[in-house]
Amino acid sequence: MDGRDNIQEVSNRNEFTETSSASALFDASQHAFFGKDVLEEVELGGLEEDDGTQLVGFDDEEYRLSEREEDEGLGSLSDIDDLASTFSKVSGEIPATPDNQSVRTTYSGPLGSGEIEVKEEEEEQVVTPWEVGSGGGGKIDYDKLISKFGCQKLDPNLISRVEQLTSRPPHVFLRRGVFFAHRDFNEILDAYQKGDKFYLYTGRGPSSEALHLGHLIPFMFTKYLQDAFKVPLVIQLTDDEKCMWKKNLSVEESKRLARENAKDIIACGFDINRTFIFSNFGYMGGAFYENVVRVASCVSFNQVRGIFGFSPEDHIGKIGFPPVQAVPSFPTSFPHLFSGRDNPRCLIPCAIDQDPYFRMTRDVAPRIKYQKPALIESLFFPALQGESGKMSASDPNSAIYVTDSKNDIKKKINRHAFSGGQDSLENQRKYGANLEVDIPVKYLSFFLEDDAELEHIKKEYGAGRMLTGEVKSRLIEVLTEMVMRHREARSAVTDEMVDEFMAVRPLPGMFD
Amino acid sequence: MDGRDNIQEVSNRNEFTETSSASALFDASQHAFFGKDVLEEVELGGLEEDDGTQLVGFDDEEYRLSEREEDEGLGSLSDIDDLASTFSKVSGEIPATPDNQSVRTTYSGPLGSGEIEVKEEEEEQVVTPWEVGSGGGGKIDYDKLISKFGCQKLDPNLISRVEQLTSRPPHVFLRRGVFFAHRDFNEILDAYQKGDKFYLYTGRGPSSEALHLGHLIPFMFTKYLQDAFKVPLVIQLTDDEKCMWKKNLSVEESKRLARENAKDIIACGFDINRTFIFSNFGYMGGAFYENVVRVASCVSFNQVRGIFGFSPEDHIGKIGFPPVQAVPSFPTSFPHLFSGRDNPRCLIPCAIDQDPYFRMTRDVAPRIKYQKPALIESLFFPALQGESGKMSASDPNSAIYVTDSKNDIKKKINRHAFSGGQDSLENQRKYGANLEVDIPVKYLSFFLEDDAELEHIKKEYGAGRMLTGEVKSRLIEVLTEMVMRHREARSAVTDEMVDEFMAVRPLPGMFD
Repeated sequence: MDGRDNIQEVSNRNEFTETSSASALFDASQHAFFGKDVLEEVELGGLEEDDGTQLVGFDDEEYRLSEREEDEGLGSLSDIDDLASTFSKVSGEIPATPDNQSVRTTYSGPLGSGEIEVKEEEEEQVVTPWEVGSGGGGKIDYDKLISKFGCQKLDPNLISRVEQLTSRPPHVFLRRGVFFAHRDFNEILDAYQKGDKFYLYTGRGPSSEALHLGHLIPFMFTKYLQDAFKVPLVIQLTDDEKCMWKKNLSVEESKRLARENAKDIIACGFDINRTFIFSNFGYMGGAFYENVVRVASCVSFNQVRGIFGFSPEDHIGKIGFPPVQAVPSFPTSFPHLFSGRDNPRCLIPCAIDQDPYFRMTRDVAPRIKYQKPALIESLFFPALQGESGKMSASDPNSAIYVTDSKNDIKKKINRHAFSGGQDSLENQRKYGANLEVDIPVKYLSFFLEDDAELEHIKKEYGAGRMLTGEVKSRLIEVLTEMVMRHREARSAVTDEMVDEFMAVRPLPGMFD
Repeated sequence: MDGRDNIQEVSNRNEFTETSSASALFDASQHAFFGKDVLEEVELGGLEEDDGTQLVGFDDEEYRLSEREEDEGLGSLSDIDDLASTFSKVSGEIPATPDNQSVRTTYSGPLGSGEIEVKEEEEEQVVTPWEVGSGGGGKIDYDKLISKFGCQKLDPNLISRVEQLTSRPPHVFLRRGVFFAHRDFNEILDAYQKGDKFYLYTGRGPSSEALHLGHLIPFMFTKYLQDAFKVPLVIQLTDDEKCMWKKNLSVEESKRLARENAKDIIACGFDINRTFIFSNFGYMGGAFYENVVRVASCVSFNQVRGIFGFSPEDHIGKIGFPPVQAVPSFPTSFPHLFSGRDNPRCLIPCAIDQDPYFRMTRDVAPRIKYQKPALIESLFFPALQGESGKMSASDPNSAIYVTDSKNDIKKKINRHAFSGGQDSLENQRKYGANLEVDIPVKYLSFFLEDDAELEHIKKEYGAGRMLTGEVKSRLIEVLTEMVMRHREARSAVTDEMVDEFMAVRPLPGMFD
C-alpha cells in the first residue's frame, strides 16, 4: 500500500470525526493517563506559527521535535508480535518527508477542520503511534488509524448490548460516539451476560490543581459504567509519574495535588462501596510492586522507545514508569479487593491516547499468565477556541474549569468559544452556521443530554434560523448547571472522605 | 598518556595484590550487591578456553561479550562531572583493539597470576569500569584502577584512626588490606570523632540458597563495624533485582530465598537493637519509593548504559533498578529509624564491584539535597581452585559453603584447593611453595586471626620447611571451626527472629 493512500477524506461511523492530533509527538506528561489532558492534545491545532518545533504549553524541560532521536530502536520489537505488526504497518504506510521540511497538514474532526503547520524532522521516518498523521501533508482517516492501533470500532450492536444488559439507556458518550473504540469490550459483555463480573480501572495524572471539562469525561463515563454494571472500580493517581515528568514538581506537591484531584473525582459521584482510589506514592509496594517487576521484566528499552518515543537521554524514571500504569490492569495488584475473587477481568475506560500503555500491557499479560485488560476508548475533547486559534494550556480562557464561576463560564463561552456562525446576521440567515467548526455545538454534543433538542439546535443553527448567541446561551445554561453541580458536590468532599476512598480496605459488597 | 602505560606490573600497598577481573563485563546478576558473588568474579580467571566469549557459570539469558553494544551512549555523561571525568580518563588510557580479536591478558593478584583469553569485540573501545583491564593484553595496576574509579586507598593512618576511635584492634580485613579502598571514610571518622554518628548499609542479592565464604566477608566486616562504632545498620535484600535478572526465578521463590539468606546474615551476629533487614519486595513503598523516584529522575538511560553496561535490548526492570540499590544510602528512606535523627551519614561496606552503584548515588545526592554516602570497599575473595583451573559457580567444589559438613570442607580443601607447593617432597624442601598462587595461604590470610602464626606459616611454607598438607590441615581447622560456628548460629535463627529483624520498627537505642 502506498503511503499516500492513508491520506484521504475522513469518514467516521458517528457524528464525530476526529483529528488524530496528527503531528503530535507523544509526551506522556501532557496527555498521559486516561485523556486528562486532551485539551493540550487538541492544542496541536494551535501551534505557534513562529516556531513550528515548539508545542505550545509544553514545559521547557520536555520533548521538542527537534530534540528527538528516532533513528533506531525498533529492531528488537519482533519478539512482541502485536506491537511489531502495528509498527511495521504504520512504518510502511507513512512516507518519510525530507529533513526539516515544514509541511501543512489538514485535518477534520468533531472540532472542525483546518490546517496546521508541522515541522518535520529528519527523525520523522520512524513513526510512533502518535506521529501517524504527521507525514504526507494530508488528512487522516481515523478509521484507518484505529485499525492500525489494533483496536476495534464500537459498533451500534455493542451499544445495544450494553443497553440490554444494563436495562438503561446508553450513556450520551456512547450514543454520540465519544467513546468510539474498544479492545475486547465484547468479551467483557459476553462474560457479564454469563454472570462473570469485571472491574473498572481508570486514572489521572495529578498535574494541576483544577480539572477542566475534558478531564471529567472519563470519570463521568466511568461512573455511568460503575452504576450500570454494578462493578468495582480502581482509580490510579500517578503522582509519581507527574513529579518525574515535571522537573520542578516536588514529591510533596505532587502528593498534595493527587489528594486535591481525588476530591474532584469523588465529586463525580462514585460509590464508596465499590471504589478504591490510590496514589502511586501511597500504594506502591507489596503485590502491586511485584506485578510492576513482572511487567518490567518483559519490556525492553527498545520497546518503550518505540511505543512511547522515549530517547536514551530520558531519565530512567520515565523509562521505567509504564509498568506502573500497566499493573492496575491485573486484579492481583489489589489483594485487599480481589484475593479469592476468581480474578475478574479489567475494563479500562480512557482516551485513545492512552492506548499504547495498554497495548503494552495486553502484550505482556499472557507472558506473565494474566488476562489482558479490555478497553473502551474516547475521542479527545475540543478546546474552547477551536483548532484554528493559538491556544495554550496555561491560558485559562482555553477551557472551562470546574472552579470557574457562573460569570467565568458566561464570559469564556461568549468571548472565546469558536463559532461556526456567519459574520453577520444577514449571512447567518442566508448560509447558516458551519457546524463542523462550531465549538458551542460540539460542547452541547458532549453535554446536552436531550437528543431531540440537540438535533433541533443543529438543524436550526445550521440552516441559519438560529443565531450563535442563542446556541451559546443554551450552552452556558448547560455548562453552568453542570459545573455548579460539580462544585457543590466537591465542596461536600472532606479530607476524611478522601481518606476513606483511599484506604486500603476490602470492598465486600462491590459486586452486588 | 598512552594506553600502554596502563599495563604494567602490579604493585599494591598491602600484602594483597588483586586481579581487577580484567576482562569482566559487568553483569549485575553475578556480582551485584556488596561482593556477595566475588567467587564468580574470580572465575574470570577460569574462562572456558573453547569459548572465549562465554563467562562460565553465567546464566544463559544473561550478558555475553558477543552480544553487547557499546558503540554509543557516553555522549550525555557530561552533565555528571564525576562520571564524565572517570570515563574520559578510562577511555583515554585503554587502547582499542581490532574487531573480534582474541587476546591473552595476564594478571596477578592475591589469587596468583596467570593468563586468560579474552574475546575482544568491536565495541570494546567504549570502556566501562569493569572492562578497564581488558584492552592491550597486559597486567593491571590495581592502584591505577582505583584512582580511575575515583576512590581512595585506605592508608595505614586511617586504620590507626579506626583503632584509636574504637579502642579495639582493627579487624583482620583492615590489617590485611581486604578492605583496601574507600570514599570519604575519613569524613565519617572526622564526624564520629566530633560525636556525630553514622549508619551502615550493606546488602545481598538473594540468588542462592546457601552462602559461601565469600558472601560472608562483607557481613563479617559490617558486624565488626557495627560493634566497634555502635551504630545502626540497614541490610537490603534485593529480591526484586534477582527475579528481574534471572528469568526463571519467580517472585515467590526470590522472596523465599531472601528470608533464607536473612537467616545466614542474622547468624553473623548482628545486634537486633541496631539492625533493620529488609527485602525490596517487602519494604518498597512510602518514603523509600519517593527517594527511588527522586534518584531515577536524575539518571538517564545513557548514563546507566555507561555505568552498568546496559543495552537498549535490556528490559526496563534492569534499567530502572539502580535507584533501588541507591536509596538506602539516604536516611530519609527509613523514616521509622531516622525521622528526627538529624540525617546521619551513611557508610557502605561492600566489594569494589559495587562501586558504580554508589558512584551514581554520590553523583545524584547533592542534586536532590542529600549527603553522599561514604564507602569502604573490599577486594574479591578467591575461588578454591585458584585462577588457573576451569571453575563454575554451579560447581559446589569451587567454594566452601556455610552448609558444608566437616567432611565436605576437608575433602574440598584437600582435593580442590589450588596449591603453590612443589610437585614432590624433594622439590618442596628445595624450592618452597609459591605463595602467590597458593589458595590455602590466601584463605588463611582472610580467616586466620593470629598475625604471628600467619607470618610463620608463610615463612616456613615459602621456604619449603612446611608442606602443603600441613597448611591445608591448619586451614581445614580454621574453616571448620568458622563454618560450624556459623551453622550452629544459623540453626538457632527462627522465623520469628527473621520477622523481628525485618519488622519496620524504630530502633530507639541504636546509637547508644
